[in-house]
Amino acid sequence: MTGVEGLIFRKACREDVPSLVALLADDPLGQAREGTDLAPYLAAFDAIAAQPMHQIIVGELKGRIVATCQLTLLHGLSRQGMTRALVEAVRTAPELRGLGIGAALMAEAEARARAAGAGIIQLTTDKTRHRAHAFYDRLGYVASHLGYKKPLV
Amino acid sequence: MTGVEGLIFRKACREDVPSLVALLADDPLGQAREGTDLAPYLAAFDAIAAQPMHQIIVGELKGRIVATCQLTLLHGLSRQGMTRALVEAVRTAPELRGLGIGAALMAEAEARARAAGAGIIQLTTDKTRHRAHAFYDRLGYVASHLGYKKPLV
Repeated sequence: MTGVEGLIFRKACREDVPSLVALLADDPLGQAREGTDLAPYLAAFDAIAAQPMHQIIVGELKGRIVATCQLTLLHGLSRQGMTRALVEAVRTAPELRGLGIGAALMAEAEARARAAGAGIIQLTTDKTRHRAHAFYDRLGYVASHLGYKKPLV
Repeated sequence: MTGVEGLIFRKACREDVPSLVALLADDPLGQAREGTDLAPYLAAFDAIAAQPMHQIIVGELKGRIVATCQLTLLHGLSRQGMTRALVEAVRTAPELRGLGIGAALMAEAEARARAAGAGIIQLTTDKTRHRAHAFYDRLGYVASHLGYKKPLV
């Protein structure tokens, strides 16, 4: 299925949360944003798991979680009521980059989004993530939009 | 509440769908994307209404819908399990721009997001929407991200 032998994808389970947090934190931007207390992550996992529109996908290689993203299906009126798929929190283990794991993860997310009836898949990535930009360009994504954020707290 | 006398905000109801579709289509990009058959919009409205994480906000002035956006609350693991608010499909009636209706709409969305526990609010806007960029800049949004999209059909 993927170019990486033994790589499988599945939905995350609660026991994966510590590994997922470690992956999120092992990142130039993530390391400043993530914490060591697991409680808020477990609470968020439970909230995600309670809503069928969300799924956290994990890529597992030889029993280790090496990639993850969150896929969310969004209903909306625009584009003739088109269902969108939103991808957030994409990570591949830094020491395993260049093997095709990230591309396989995105292909998995797209297949799941398509199977759920989504007509478009979208994501935002920080302007400073130049490697990520080249990655999404290669996979056929178009940077047609600007992504704005505003803290509420 | 807003600087526009008589402007009120409320959640959309099914009877608003024709007005909402007209607002979505009354736009340089929207006019190429929206259709005249209401059935897919009504189906999408029902799907949105069935999920409490979504709300379509409408701004009503003298009985007429003059602004809308869709607000969605997203649970996620990253940023210590922070809940995000996503805004999509923001529109103000073109002939009523410059009165502060759009700013009041965004303030309403932010207040609802904050009340629901969101720590950040985010949106994407097409790179060609220069007026929208200036608008979000003024409201304190930061264009820190690129927004990538890929059609799935």
